[in-house]
Amino acid sequence: MQPAFRKIVIFGVGLIGGSFALALRKAGVVGEVVGFGRSQATLEEAQSLGIIDRIGSDVAAEVGDADLVLLATPVAQMGELFARIAPHLGSHTLVTDGGSTKCDVVAAARSQLADKIAQFVPGHPIAGAEKSGASAAMADLYQGKKVVLAPLPENLPASVACVRQAWEACGANVMELTPEEHDGVFAAVSHLPHLLSFALVHDLAQRDNKDLLLSFAASGFRDFTRIAASSPEMWRDISLANRDALLQEVKRYTDELNVIHQALQYNDAAKLEEIFSVARAVRSTWTQQ
Amino acid sequence: MQPAFRKIVIFGVGLIGGSFALALRKAGVVGEVVGFGRSQATLEEAQSLGIIDRIGSDVAAEVGDADLVLLATPVAQMGELFARIAPHLGSHTLVTDGGSTKCDVVAAARSQLADKIAQFVPGHPIAGAEKSGASAAMADLYQGKKVVLAPLPENLPASVACVRQAWEACGANVMELTPEEHDGVFAAVSHLPHLLSFALVHDLAQRDNKDLLLSFAASGFRDFTRIAASSPEMWRDISLANRDALLQEVKRYTDELNVIHQALQYNDAAKLEEIFSVARAVRSTWTQQ
Repeated sequence: MQPAFRKIVIFGVGLIGGSFALALRKAGVVGEVVGFGRSQATLEEAQSLGIIDRIGSDVAAEVGDADLVLLATPVAQMGELFARIAPHLGSHTLVTDGGSTKCDVVAAARSQLADKIAQFVPGHPIAGAEKSGASAAMADLYQGKKVVLAPLPENLPASVACVRQAWEACGANVMELTPEEHDGVFAAVSHLPHLLSFALVHDLAQRDNKDLLLSFAASGFRDFTRIAASSPEMWRDISLANRDALLQEVKRYTDELNVIHQALQYNDAAKLEEIFSVARAVRSTWTQQ
Repeated sequence: MQPAFRKIVIFGVGLIGGSFALALRKAGVVGEVVGFGRSQATLEEAQSLGIIDRIGSDVAAEVGDADLVLLATPVAQMGELFARIAPHLGSHTLVTDGGSTKCDVVAAARSQLADKIAQFVPGHPIAGAEKSGASAAMADLYQGKKVVLAPLPENLPASVACVRQAWEACGANVMELTPEEHDGVFAAVSHLPHLLSFALVHDLAQRDNKDLLLSFAASGFRDFTRIAASSPEMWRDISLANRDALLQEVKRYTDELNVIHQALQYNDAAKLEEIFSVARAVRSTWTQQ
């Protein structure tokens, strides 16, 4: 029996791209995996770990007969990659990505892929990024995890189904959102909390008595600020890539804080209790899916 | 050998007061423990658990010959308790408390204890409050934990030393701050993060698409909002009790958010990276003490 994907090309063979390859191999749905990347050492490591079969050298040749191309690089590099692959994409070749923002990736794809835009099905696997690199890749990273596909109006249903099939073979639960919905959702539940957590620690870090303050910080602070230890470069890029949605979120949150400030200022116990009670009710019934 | 404390009276025999009694008993430094409280059932439970020797019935008689009185009730009830014990305090009896704010407790004490104010040594044990009630009390709750004493100018050094001795017998590390320092520190590292976490969840809870949003929330959201499941009544009271310091913190944090909003608005990648980097550096070297 033919594997579902005879040949897959992966740009970026780290945690996201490497785990995708390992999962597809484990599921037995891929023939050959070819890897591209900026670091020769990482590519060699990926090959020795059995993540890729070959290190690609000629983009034009490799993407012409691939079934699927995955861009698993930082979002900022994707525009250039779309430009490199665009002239050479085979007519049946599909492209997807693993970027954590979608509107900016879609804009880059539209600009570079032009009349081949229907071949690009945007995606975002929601999987942990505490570790990175090819050595962190795992065949079961996506098992039970969510993957968002953000199809374009130009995509054929069969193209979306094909990318969905790949992620489902990795064990993921695939959901669909529009690119705008995706960016709005993640601005609210991920990007904003990261900003707020960085902001708190930065605020404390500026103070003359910061050592005293931090010596009394306890478990509430620990949990609230865990994400403030995330990569500054990655969060700079995500913040700017999802700037419009995030600006709206910061504005909205500032308004919320103003309501709380006012309730405090006027000793409005009922208002404070109402806000805290609504929050507690929602948070204590929420469970991570 | 005489125990260091022949008789201790505890108002509120839940997690904080009950654990104090159990720890002092275990250390062998207390003769008799008498408990008062609003709920007869809790008092009986505390007695059956060996936390207290007797349920008190006559405040006047019990506080007259006690070595130490601990107020371990919600802060809002302390004013009334100071008024009840004030006329009957023995001349050698010391009073301390376990409230999580200090300036308001000190103000209530000054107003009710009047010329006996020197007998009150304010305190705040920094110990988890996930559980509550007498059944949650543990002899080792304070082992290795911080207890802040916030002595008054009127306190004799020997009085402060005596209260310190009790907490050290519980295994705690005792630090001293002024009441104002205490409230400023905890507004910044505890009360503000709680407000911010409640605010985020409340903000999301108001939206038409809240179920969609919450279905995509992941581990960053989980940690950031863990404290939004805290008791609304307790945090309403703490917020109002520490209102002045907390208003300053909310104002300061809003200013910080405005800086971030502006950096986003002007695509100031360097500024964002600087803020995130400072935060990451501080958070990743911080360890809970």
